[in-house]
Amino acid sequence: MTPLSFPSKLLESAVDEFAKLPGVGRRTALRLVLHMLRQPPEATDRFAGALTELRHNVKFCRLCHNISDNDTCTICANPKRDPTLICVVESIKDVLMVESTQQFNGLYHVLGGVINPMEGIGPQSLHIESLVERVIQGGIREVILALSATMEGDTTNFFILKRLKPSGVSVSTLARGVSFGDELEHTDEITLGRAIVNRVPL
Amino acid sequence: MTPLSFPSKLLESAVDEFAKLPGVGRRTALRLVLHMLRQPPEATDRFAGALTELRHNVKFCRLCHNISDNDTCTICANPKRDPTLICVVESIKDVLMVESTQQFNGLYHVLGGVINPMEGIGPQSLHIESLVERVIQGGIREVILALSATMEGDTTNFFILKRLKPSGVSVSTLARGVSFGDELEHTDEITLGRAIVNRVPL
Repeated sequence: MTPLSFPSKLLESAVDEFAKLPGVGRRTALRLVLHMLRQPPEATDRFAGALTELRHNVKFCRLCHNISDNDTCTICANPKRDPTLICVVESIKDVLMVESTQQFNGLYHVLGGVINPMEGIGPQSLHIESLVERVIQGGIREVILALSATMEGDTTNFFILKRLKPSGVSVSTLARGVSFGDELEHTDEITLGRAIVNRVPL
Repeated sequence: MTPLSFPSKLLESAVDEFAKLPGVGRRTALRLVLHMLRQPPEATDRFAGALTELRHNVKFCRLCHNISDNDTCTICANPKRDPTLICVVESIKDVLMVESTQQFNGLYHVLGGVINPMEGIGPQSLHIESLVERVIQGGIREVILALSATMEGDTTNFFILKRLKPSGVSVSTLARGVSFGDELEHTDEITLGRAIVNRVPL
């Protein structure tokens, strides 16, 4: 299709900015901008203000590197959480995912990614040393590695395991198996194989 | 799924604002906000700035009600366009859609919607009187009604036709027929029926 030619530079800049977001094409961007134009100006001010404030005032927890409004995040600061258990995740989003299961009451450690040599991400670009330090300082019973079930995730698991070995802390990883709702015929053979090897007595 | 509980109020407000956009759920909103956090702060400033500037400085063309940076839009101000031809559309977006066909070289008139009694939109909420005035002032050869092929669009077509009748101007509407690429077996019977009645000699 012929690219849209905009009657207004202001409209065009706003559409351009929206279209920079991942998964947002120019037509979707136009739809979102026209939606904003139908709302009162205060709605746009609130939207723009919330983003600007977040981007400039965001902090990261000095302990777990999770996003936070203060130096220590609400999870690390919560006395009801078990500080002897650390769940290691790739990103802030994964903290929210694990939290939404309501099955974990320990603290987190956000790596900021996984080791990926193809993309130039080595162990030194990740928050691995600060994890080792947290463990060395003592008081940690178990470290749960909750990384992606990919080659990069496995590599990172292995690297962290090696670094934590001297401390003697227990290290575990997420159970691998058939997902809830999956039909066997649609499960890949690696997953199915692991599920058989790690079968659970009833 | 359990709703996400955010470790940061700033993050939560930004996600809330994004999730107010049409078609954006809270998980997509979170993805977009986390993407912004990975960009330099200036990117967020540009994004927020473009939206705020658009929302506060946007003007509408005094002739055709299209979005514009000045009192008269670039289309109405363009001396190469044919001012005797007016294409009537529902929205700014439709102006862009017609422009992208590169088949129309006249001017536009943006109604701001169609007559829809169910949603309380009567003729007086639309820019119909200013269209009638443009026609009465003279110099218009033809008015093309390019509204949606819906009941509301047809009602609006009929209303405008009645209002323009005294002026004696030619009024036309978009051809209805089988869409490009459509297979006959998937074409609805109203469209197919009209396409047969309005068949074109080869």
